[in-house]
Formats: sequence, structure tokens, C-alpha cells
Amino acid sequence: MEPTTEPKPEEITKSAEDSASSTKEEEKKTEQKVTAFEVEAGETGVDYNKLIDQFGCDRINEKHLEKIEELTGKKPHRFLRREIFFSHRSLDWCLKSFETGRGFYLYTGRGPSSSSLHIGHAIPFIFTKYMQEAFDLPLVIQLTDDEKFFHKQDLTFENVHKMGYDNIKDIIAFGFDPEKTFIFSDIDYIKYLYPNVCKMQKALTLNNVKGVFGFNDSDNAGKYAFPAVQAAPSFSNTFPHIFGKKKNVPCLIPQAIDQDPYFRMTRDIAKKLKYEKPGCIQSKFFPAITGLSGKMSASLANTTIYLSDDPKQIKNKIKKHAKSGGGETLEEHREKGANLEVDIPYQYLTFFMEDDEELARIAEEYSSGRMLTGEIKQICADVITEFITEYQERRKKVTDEDVQLFTSIRPINPKSSKMPEKPAEEAKK
Amino acid sequence: MEPTTEPKPEEITKSAEDSASSTKEEEKKTEQKVTAFEVEAGETGVDYNKLIDQFGCDRINEKHLEKIEELTGKKPHRFLRREIFFSHRSLDWCLKSFETGRGFYLYTGRGPSSSSLHIGHAIPFIFTKYMQEAFDLPLVIQLTDDEKFFHKQDLTFENVHKMGYDNIKDIIAFGFDPEKTFIFSDIDYIKYLYPNVCKMQKALTLNNVKGVFGFNDSDNAGKYAFPAVQAAPSFSNTFPHIFGKKKNVPCLIPQAIDQDPYFRMTRDIAKKLKYEKPGCIQSKFFPAITGLSGKMSASLANTTIYLSDDPKQIKNKIKKHAKSGGGETLEEHREKGANLEVDIPYQYLTFFMEDDEELARIAEEYSSGRMLTGEIKQICADVITEFITEYQERRKKVTDEDVQLFTSIRPINPKSSKMPEKPAEEAKK
Repeated sequence: MEPTTEPKPEEITKSAEDSASSTKEEEKKTEQKVTAFEVEAGETGVDYNKLIDQFGCDRINEKHLEKIEELTGKKPHRFLRREIFFSHRSLDWCLKSFETGRGFYLYTGRGPSSSSLHIGHAIPFIFTKYMQEAFDLPLVIQLTDDEKFFHKQDLTFENVHKMGYDNIKDIIAFGFDPEKTFIFSDIDYIKYLYPNVCKMQKALTLNNVKGVFGFNDSDNAGKYAFPAVQAAPSFSNTFPHIFGKKKNVPCLIPQAIDQDPYFRMTRDIAKKLKYEKPGCIQSKFFPAITGLSGKMSASLANTTIYLSDDPKQIKNKIKKHAKSGGGETLEEHREKGANLEVDIPYQYLTFFMEDDEELARIAEEYSSGRMLTGEIKQICADVITEFITEYQERRKKVTDEDVQLFTSIRPINPKSSKMPEKPAEEAKK
Repeated sequence: MEPTTEPKPEEITKSAEDSASSTKEEEKKTEQKVTAFEVEAGETGVDYNKLIDQFGCDRINEKHLEKIEELTGKKPHRFLRREIFFSHRSLDWCLKSFETGRGFYLYTGRGPSSSSLHIGHAIPFIFTKYMQEAFDLPLVIQLTDDEKFFHKQDLTFENVHKMGYDNIKDIIAFGFDPEKTFIFSDIDYIKYLYPNVCKMQKALTLNNVKGVFGFNDSDNAGKYAFPAVQAAPSFSNTFPHIFGKKKNVPCLIPQAIDQDPYFRMTRDIAKKLKYEKPGCIQSKFFPAITGLSGKMSASLANTTIYLSDDPKQIKNKIKKHAKSGGGETLEEHREKGANLEVDIPYQYLTFFMEDDEELARIAEEYSSGRMLTGEIKQICADVITEFITEYQERRKKVTDEDVQLFTSIRPINPKSSKMPEKPAEEAKK
């Protein structure tokens, strides 16, 4: 996961054309480039409406939330309530499949580029855990050691595999249910992936891969080989120990929206291979401490909150580096209030504070200027510290035996999972 | 194996330039294009001297034969005595490694494009069996199901794997020793291949692959991914169950010369990966029944001798279709004799008649016009029938249990094999 995704060149162009009629200032604000390598945007952050149009995804709406509440009997996750997971492909089809007893499974992943996760990495895992629990779904999690090896010149094969192993422990610590979760590294599970990898690689021309990812002839052969490896877990017959003879079980992939090109490509090929198209449910980026113009990156240690940070480090990073939407001076702040849209502490609270009413209260207090920047930073540090502390408690307890358990090739059988006995029909979209 | 190999474009050009000073008629004779897809040559066949120059290999000479006889205590195989295996890379290094107790192993393979082998496919296996026996060497044999799947549009993944399985039985029937031989399909053994596949793929740019194989952007991604899969068995750490902790055991690859581009590339990368460069020992092509301008092809059923043919079919194919070097009329033949160089029955005898003196007698009788075309065709049919009948006897006895035995992941331990305890130094060439 987290691969070298780039929108098709024509889509980048389209984006530029869209803003051609705007004034120069507006242009500067909305100018953006979203790839898995980098997220560049203006100070007001990524224009997600534009991204949905570019990629051709659909917006998650009130009806989806109502349906999810109906099917799970629970209030939808705050990431859904607050439009953090905001975009999808074939979500309706997956929900319908669940409702009619056919079921679906979840697939997510991680590229082990560092031995410690940061808080941005947590978003898809938090959401996936919620989905697994709420719908009682089987879940597969892929560690793309190979991809990170191809894309990071200085990583050795052995090191990346070692980091992947450590990351499996980090992932387990999000609280996934071992009865329902299979975690695998591509390197170890490649024998099972390989039939679908080959089928994908045969169906993809170099032109296709270049078009989707923007590679050129100086890129290594592994980068061209890899997209098929990320695609393979989208098809249920990649997991015979989970799905047995059940064919074409639908798959839903929680992901940050920059992964969309991978699965747009996968969906195109699925059609050719007569496989069910995987669905996607897509999040906004977790913003960098320094502001909305980028997403959090593991390469900037001082401004990145790691899941291994202690409370003091968390507090320091937020207090010192978090971009504020508050006024320049106390007077200005009291008078005009804070701009919540660009205020990183407030934005972080939308990700991590569970209580809607308390969040609304803070929004009101802060935007009116009654609450000061120092205060909201403290609240933010407290909320994040609470999340990370709880995470670290679970992380400490994860053992090599747990890794053995989660990664062993075995049946996983959610009690109430409704797996189809017959091939599902092609997803409509 | 038998992949889409093409000499580098500049090499093809070089070949054309070499003959630019010749007369047009000479040009026509020597014009040739050698790829794994096709062998095009004039009526006098492939100019192997030119090919050695193009590819940058070395000719096998009398000293090699003397050394082989010294090391094995046996007369070198007729394929060596008759320059059918005529070219090499790092053969001296492998022989030296054997002589000094470091040892080496053999690697060959087959791409399962048809469920029945033809007699041309037998050549590398006959030679490899000789090498295994004479030197008492461990041997690995790769079935490149994936490669054939990528290169043959109409083959399904399941069919090609089924053909590969049948081909394993055909290969076992050449008489390989199960104590010394490990046979594997890429699809089944990919987990062990994958670390070296990834390392190769990272080290190869698209430009490299295009340069060696002549692919373009309309080719599928699998074709670009595959060369690394064929390369991986050249490195002994791909087989931990055979070589254990022994590092960089030298590898010698018996092959038809059209496979050279694969291993030229592999040798280049080996250097980057600090692996031992594999050696190669290379054969001429087994010519088509219809003449030296092509190699035998499985796609022309009437003029291809299959290892499943019965004596009547063999006789018919040779009598009806074998290109003759004899005179046009009986008178002309008696007067001028036969041209052995272009006579297919005689050429086939050089491959399959063991007795040097008898072969010399036939050459003398036939080239002088005393022996007639019908007579040499009969001798040829008899010799080939004997070979194929014996082969079929062995083939009948090969069981699913034999496949299980040869393909199981296990130690293989030739009694007298001298495997190095320490990494071998880099091959000089």
C-alpha cells in the first residue's frame, strides 16, 4: 500500500483546466497534486470535491450513513459522521450484498517504509477495525514489503522484511480480532497471490501502467510488476483458506484517497478476468502538523507524531509546531475568532475526539475567540495522548506468538458473516 | 525457458553491418535473426561463428574437452565431440571450481507451451543428464509456466500449469537421478524464488529489459516481470534446502544459444548483487525436418517429430519431409555425392548416432554418392526410433508419485558432490 500512485496525466491536466477560469489567487489556493508520494495543496488544504471529480469516485452521503446504521445497529463511526471517510466506489453494492446475505470482506494494507507508524497511518486501521466489528467481517491485511523495496533505493530486502514484521505487531495493536483477521507479507504469501498476480500482469500493458502511475523507462521493473501484487487481494480466490469454494465474494477496501488509481486499474482488469470489482471507501488525508498543504510524513521526525511518542513529545510537537487558525494577536483573536478550517489542533480533534457535542462546543468557543489557541492545543494533546497511550498499552502486549497467529494460513470465520454460496453478480458500477 | 529473447537491437544491426561488404548472394545466405521465438537463417543454416561474436560468448575448444575428460574420467559426450554444444560463458571457471573442490550445480528449464515435447526439446535434457552423471552434480530444473502464460495470448493460467505438470513427467523420463534433481514450477516454487526475483527486478530498469528483449509499451507487464524469474535459479541461495548455508555455489546452465540474452543480463546483475555469475554451456539448434533455415517447432505437426510418435510416424515424417543434400537425380547423386552440411538426415545422425566410426563411414559413403538418400533416411529413422522407443519405455513408467518425489522441497545430495563451504570468488569473466 501507499504506493507510487499518480493520477493519469490527463487527469492532472483536467485539474489545471478546471481552475483556468479562476483568478490567479484562487488558482494558487486550489492548485494541488495528489500522489502517494506527496500531497501538495494550497493553505486551505486539498480540494476533495475536485479530487472526486478527477478520480471519478462518488461522495458518501446521508443515505449511506443511514443504511450503515440500519445494517450494523450502531451509530456510524465519527470518521463517517464527519466526512473524513467521504468518497467511495461500489459501496452501495457491498452494502446490498451484505443486506441480501451475500456478504463482503475487507482488505487493507501497509507499505513498511519505517519501523514505527505515525498517527496518520492509524486512520485506515482505526476505520477498518470499526468496519470489521460493526459488520462482523473477515479482514485481510497486506504488508507490501516488495513495493517499498522497489520504491526506496536505500532499503535492502532483508531490512524491509524486518520492518514489515515489526509493523505487523503495530497493526495487531489496533485491536483486530484474530478470529476474523489474516495478516500477510507479500513476500511470505506470494505463492497464493501469484496466480492472480500473473493474470493481472498479463492483462496490463506497459502503457496501462505508465498511464496510471506515471512511471517511465528509467524506473525499475519491480515498480511495473508490483501493481498486480497490490491488486491480487481484491479477489476472494486469492484466499482459498478463507473463502474455500465460494466464488467472487465482494471486497471493500478502506484506503486514503491517493490509493484510488490502484483500484481504478484493478476494477478495470477485474471486468476482463470476470471477477467481482472491489469496492473502495476512501478517506481524506491526516494533515501535517505544519498545515493543510501536506499530509503527515514519517520523514520529518520533529513534526510527526509517532505512535511510539510519549505524552511529553506529543505535547511539545503540538504546542511548538501545530499550525494555528487563531488570530495573530490576542486582541485579533478575541475579536475575529479562529479559522477552524486551517487550524490543525481543531482538525486533529475532528479525527480523534469521539464526543460530537464536546467537539461542537469547542468549535463554537474557539471560532468565536473565547477559547485561545493554547487551550485547544492542550485539549488536542490530551485527546491524542489518550489515544496513543491506550494504543501503546495494547502494543506492549503483542508477542511473536500473536504475529504467528495472525499470519498463519488458516480459516477465519466471523460468526455472523454471510458469505455467498454462489458467485455474486458483477457489481453494477 | 525458451523465452522471448532477442539480441539487442544494436547487435542485430551489427550482424547486418558485418555482411555489408559481402556480395548480395552471400548476404542472402548468411542473413539471420535468432530469437527464442524464431530462428531465421539461409539455406546453409545459422552462422554460429557470427552468433558467438554477436553475443560475446566463447567457443568451446579442444582444451575444454580434454579437461572434461580428465575430470570425469569419461569420453566427452557426442554433443561436445561434434560441436553441438559449442559455446560457453565461464565454463573454465566452473571446471576450475569443480577441480579445486568447490563444485558447481546445473540449472536448466522448459517453458510448457505444448503438452508433448518434440525431439528438439530433448537436446538440452540429454546433455544435462550427461553432465549430471559425469560430474555427479546437483541439478535444478525450472518449469516456466508463468512465462508461457505471458507470451501465449490464448493460454489460460490453469492450462499452462497442467501442461507444465505433464512436461515434468516428460522430463523425468530422460532418466534424471531423483537423489540429485529438484524439478519445480515457478508457480509452485515462487515463494523461494521471490527474494531474488525482487532483487533482480529492482536492479533492472525498463530500458534494460527493452534493450535485451526488444519489448515495447504494448507488451504486457508480465513479460517485463518474468526475466527476473528465469534469472533467480542462477543463484544458489534460491535453494536453501539444497545448499543450506553454503554461499555463492557456482551455477552452469546448459541451454540453446538463443537463451544467451537472459543470462548475459543475469550475469550483469549478478555483479551488482555480489552474486556469483552463472556460467553457460550453449548448443546449436536442432534443425527443422524441412531444412536448416529454421529450428524444429512444435506448431507444425506434420514436420515435427514428437517424443510421443510411433516408429511409423517417425519413418513417414523423415522419408516424406526431410530436406535432402543428395543429388537431384540418381545420376547426379552417384556423380557428385551428397552435401552433408544441408542434409537433414545426416545432421540428425550427428545428434543421435553415438558411434563416431559408423557416423564417419556413413558420411564417407553418402558424400561420395555410394549411399543413397533413401538409405540414410532409413538409418536416421532407425536411430531416432531407437532413441524415442527407449524414451517412451521410461516415460510409461513415470508416475504421479515420481512427480511428487522430484518436486518435493528437500535436500538433494550427490555422493561425490564437492560443495564449497565458503563463498566462491567472483568468476573472472
